[in-house]
Amino acid sequence: MNAAIPHIGFLPAGARDLISDVPGVTVGHSTLAHGDIQTGVTVIRPHQGDAYREKVPAACAVLNGFGKSIGLVQLAELGTLETPIALTNTLSVGTVATAQIRSAVADNSRIGREQPTVNPLVFECNDGYLNDIQALAVEEAHYREALSCAAAGFVQGCLGAGRGMSCFELKGGIGSASRRVGIGESAYHVGALVLANFGKLRDLIVAGERIGSALSDKIRDGSATPEKGSIIIVLATDAPLDARQLRRLALRASVGLARTGSVFGHGSGDIALAFSTAQTIPFATQEPVLSLRCLHDAFLDPLFHAVADSTEQAILHALFAAETTTGRDGHRRVALRDLL
Amino acid sequence: MNAAIPHIGFLPAGARDLISDVPGVTVGHSTLAHGDIQTGVTVIRPHQGDAYREKVPAACAVLNGFGKSIGLVQLAELGTLETPIALTNTLSVGTVATAQIRSAVADNSRIGREQPTVNPLVFECNDGYLNDIQALAVEEAHYREALSCAAAGFVQGCLGAGRGMSCFELKGGIGSASRRVGIGESAYHVGALVLANFGKLRDLIVAGERIGSALSDKIRDGSATPEKGSIIIVLATDAPLDARQLRRLALRASVGLARTGSVFGHGSGDIALAFSTAQTIPFATQEPVLSLRCLHDAFLDPLFHAVADSTEQAILHALFAAETTTGRDGHRRVALRDLL
Amino acid sequence: MNAAIPHIGFLPAGARDLISDVPGVTVGHSTLAHGDIQTGVTVIRPHQGDAYREKVPAACAVLNGFGKSIGLVQLAELGTLETPIALTNTLSVGTVATAQIRSAVADNSRIGREQPTVNPLVFECNDGYLNDIQALAVEEAHYREALSCAAAGFVQGCLGAGRGMSCFELKGGIGSASRRVGIGESAYHVGALVLANFGKLRDLIVAGERIGSALSDKIRDGSATPEKGSIIIVLATDAPLDARQLRRLALRASVGLARTGSVFGHGSGDIALAFSTAQTIPFATQEPVLSLRCLHDAFLDPLFHAVADSTEQAILHALFAAETTTGRDGHRRVALRDLL
Amino acid sequence: MNAAIPHIGFLPAGARDLISDVPGVTVGHSTLAHGDIQTGVTVIRPHQGDAYREKVPAACAVLNGFGKSIGLVQLAELGTLETPIALTNTLSVGTVATAQIRSAVADNSRIGREQPTVNPLVFECNDGYLNDIQALAVEEAHYREALSCAAAGFVQGCLGAGRGMSCFELKGGIGSASRRVGIGESAYHVGALVLANFGKLRDLIVAGERIGSALSDKIRDGSATPEKGSIIIVLATDAPLDARQLRRLALRASVGLARTGSVFGHGSGDIALAFSTAQTIPFATQEPVLSLRCLHDAFLDPLFHAVADSTEQAILHALFAAETTTGRDGHRRVALRDLL
Repeated sequence: MNAAIPHIGFLPAGARDLISDVPGVTVGHSTLAHGDIQTGVTVIRPHQGDAYREKVPAACAVLNGFGKSIGLVQLAELGTLETPIALTNTLSVGTVATAQIRSAVADNSRIGREQPTVNPLVFECNDGYLNDIQALAVEEAHYREALSCAAAGFVQGCLGAGRGMSCFELKGGIGSASRRVGIGESAYHVGALVLANFGKLRDLIVAGERIGSALSDKIRDGSATPEKGSIIIVLATDAPLDARQLRRLALRASVGLARTGSVFGHGSGDIALAFSTAQTIPFATQEPVLSLRCLHDAFLDPLFHAVADSTEQAILHALFAAETTTGRDGHRRVALRDLL
Repeated sequence: MNAAIPHIGFLPAGARDLISDVPGVTVGHSTLAHGDIQTGVTVIRPHQGDAYREKVPAACAVLNGFGKSIGLVQLAELGTLETPIALTNTLSVGTVATAQIRSAVADNSRIGREQPTVNPLVFECNDGYLNDIQALAVEEAHYREALSCAAAGFVQGCLGAGRGMSCFELKGGIGSASRRVGIGESAYHVGALVLANFGKLRDLIVAGERIGSALSDKIRDGSATPEKGSIIIVLATDAPLDARQLRRLALRASVGLARTGSVFGHGSGDIALAFSTAQTIPFATQEPVLSLRCLHDAFLDPLFHAVADSTEQAILHALFAAETTTGRDGHRRVALRDLL
Repeated sequence: MNAAIPHIGFLPAGARDLISDVPGVTVGHSTLAHGDIQTGVTVIRPHQGDAYREKVPAACAVLNGFGKSIGLVQLAELGTLETPIALTNTLSVGTVATAQIRSAVADNSRIGREQPTVNPLVFECNDGYLNDIQALAVEEAHYREALSCAAAGFVQGCLGAGRGMSCFELKGGIGSASRRVGIGESAYHVGALVLANFGKLRDLIVAGERIGSALSDKIRDGSATPEKGSIIIVLATDAPLDARQLRRLALRASVGLARTGSVFGHGSGDIALAFSTAQTIPFATQEPVLSLRCLHDAFLDPLFHAVADSTEQAILHALFAAETTTGRDGHRRVALRDLL
Repeated sequence: MNAAIPHIGFLPAGARDLISDVPGVTVGHSTLAHGDIQTGVTVIRPHQGDAYREKVPAACAVLNGFGKSIGLVQLAELGTLETPIALTNTLSVGTVATAQIRSAVADNSRIGREQPTVNPLVFECNDGYLNDIQALAVEEAHYREALSCAAAGFVQGCLGAGRGMSCFELKGGIGSASRRVGIGESAYHVGALVLANFGKLRDLIVAGERIGSALSDKIRDGSATPEKGSIIIVLATDAPLDARQLRRLALRASVGLARTGSVFGHGSGDIALAFSTAQTIPFATQEPVLSLRCLHDAFLDPLFHAVADSTEQAILHALFAAETTTGRDGHRRVALRDLL
């Protein structure tokens, strides 16, 4: 597939050109696709251990907060995440949060008693055009299914949370990409995974080319609707960064997003999360003082480029991996591939 | 009850000395109290209309973000709330959010389709000392029950979300208070409702008096545990304020909280929300430009005092209204009244 | 000049394609250009009245905070600006702030006594490559000069604060642009003015085309230096918006910036300010409650597009208006026009 | 003096009960006191090295942003301070910032050229009641004087920036205090220094006792003026903390402030800064990855208490150290000691 898709930027991609090029990161989907139900759950595991016991530094940048994501208050305060990251449709965030809680309690029987409670972390986009979102079809079991099948070699496109998503009024979904950077003697990876559900076709830019306007004439049905989409951008890196620095990285996802034609429309909940796998913070410790490694800020620029480029690339991957899909009430989203 | 409780500050209380002194505001509880299950849901309705169709300006101040509250991202971006405010235990936030979503969809059948999705707003504290929080005993029906019985003349103490809460290692729960202020020719109300679940007994200050240390000797069992509590502070006013100003009000809740002995401990998710009932923002409009009334910032100081005083007063009310309670595994919290 | 410069986006420009298309907004420069001294001051007046007595709603978005701008704390709290906006070089912010203070006191003799003090608002970029920035050559008189010559028909390019700036390793400086939008029955303007001093040539994108890499070969001298630049983006609109909404607008400046090739590099202080001229807030009032007009958020998208497009356009204008300049120690920046 | 002043809280004070109990921290004053001029500069050095070359982690909490402090944008982004901390009157911030810049350039000749520019850090309160603030009497030399005489054994009261300040309508000024805490095997210090210039006498609380109301009758002249004051709170610690954690510490200064009777009034610019001396971040490094020590968040509570208590104590010290002072136009502020 990548052959036809332009490579964004100067940096090389990782081996898979997926977020899982960051060692330890895995992704799993649970997909619901039957008639009016076109939705699902996607889970990103930051590492293969227990996320609650071994927390990773993380931070969010809210580009447009018209969204219902769960878990950002504690993330901002403590600078760590402590569950796998879950993506789903907007009205299912409560159910998936409960699934995360139950899963963490199952693994850590003292949660909420001798130990602190667990912070669910659920991001969402509104797939209501293709999916009967009011049916609240996602169940807790779907989270567990996505979690259990998480792997480094996952598939992009109309799967998991991406099943019912629209992007630039075309079929959207899950896309991913990665970039490699060298800093000093060390090589690091940055990976992006997007749940792409935003944009008006007229605004679409592919690798600098404003192709949306011409495509728009092909499919426009005359109805001008305001943007009601969103994008969730998850960034992983194996560079040693603290939460303050990860917030700086997360904000640079906006660069890649902007270069595809988004203006972070009013109705679009656009949120980027970045985490680092370089080291973990134990949930409890006898020794009060931790020893941590941390990149000096003066060396961040290559990572900023990697974030911008892998985000733009991941959005393109989502668009190119998508397949034309019909869902609720016969609503249909054409795939970009079918239009080119 | 108020006879014995000191009146905080110079401002007079409203007629009920409850948040419902702000016209239109009502509160309802659903309480679960059987054996190891000591928990519940409390709902605050900002007005008697449909919260989604007629949004009220609102803002949050996160004093300590070690908490799992839901809905703050959109609140910060758009400056309005669009559901009743729900309080419950930490692990039940997902379930209550789902109940809010289902309730809003039932009232507005185009949500998530032609209309934007709805933003659930759920705050929480950890009642795991008295309540078997891992049982996830709260069900969606409990939210609906609390909502349906919301009234101006509600009861404080160990009800609703307050059922299993602890405060200063004593029995905590729901408290409320109000203050009246005159600004120019107009009279306004500020009301506070707290879900009080924070603090170490040694630190307790009542109306300036550090009584905690002496009380501490009466009940201390020798186990020094770090604070794992929280407080949620909901503030209502009928003064015409925008979201920026309401954030300023919300932050002043910290003053009342600090004066009771809290230092916003690491493990305590301390969040204040403020909303104004003076006017509503329609969910949709043909006319793009709204006419709004807004107090000039130079007149805010009386409201700041009212927030500080009604918050401190509400915490005292929670402590004085509480009754000694035994819950999970025979854990027991003594009421302040039983100790004085 | 505009003939050769691509028009960005679908929206029409205002009559001048300058920030002064927003009625009442004027801009003035004071330029220092002699030998090693290549610097200056640019002033933007939000309206023709006294900015302290008639404050305008305003807000900032800090894209990258590696910068020394003055005045943002109060701006964030109160949501208004109360002086003209001043731009200058990094080490001269103190001097220009003092000039603003003295100017406000001269016009309002009770400042700091019966009336509150005044909040200076000074933004900066580092022009140290072309300018002997350590000389602190800017004096208070230069601020007054720029203020006194502010006009709607101002000149772009290497003037005022833009005199010594570099952009994409080419000559940078001051650029401006505007867009017109229709919302409901009303027509509004959005104007942008940039102090462009950021970027690596390799990354330059002009209207979607990555021309930087090829140009880079023409001028590269072999020395790879980290980015130490910045961009200040000032946005004006006559649409009635409050501070919360203006912060949303300001953030969309990042879209236009990203589309020119910036990744908001570590060393670059990238800040956007947006203000609305639709109405003013009096510094003092007998009547506590103001009546304000405010666009419903659902109508913001055209303004977001106007911000993104006018920002990108203003950066292109800065690059195309620049002239090849030699300054400190013979350092030289080539103009883009001379390279094409 | 301390004999008569209540000791706040359970923690012991450091040897001097001053911010300089944190090893390496020193404080210097430059005082202007002649007739209508009652003002000055106070400087806090975080360590005895070059602050630009050896940066210390730092963070701010803005309790009320009606203030003109300089340098907080970069502090928030990079999490370090790189100059001594300067305190002065509101209208002199520009002059003192310029002095800081000139001082840093004198010590580091490549600033603004091969090296990044320097971020001045100036905090202020409005001393316009006692001081002819419009005279802009503070000169750059006063900053250098304060810097050059910085010492561990400094004097509190009406000196330096504190010279013309008012607090609770009494004489305010500089106060300081410290607390010692044990965490694990280690002993740490927290020190506070306040520039106290806030509050209405009626609201004054001393160690829990609301003594303001009674005192108010003694001095009230009948004129009810809105609060126009401010407080700056500088916190130092030798505990190893990063910028995120230091922001958490800084916010707890609000607890001590609230316990003295402040509600962070509208007109009061209330800002807290916290820094850690445990380790420094080099301004430049060959090795991209730093090794840092960092306290686990679960151990922060003792430090939170130390911040709250030392802040409250420092405010009391400022009030008790003050002397009755007459300044501009015969305005007079009585010392608390003279009233008791």
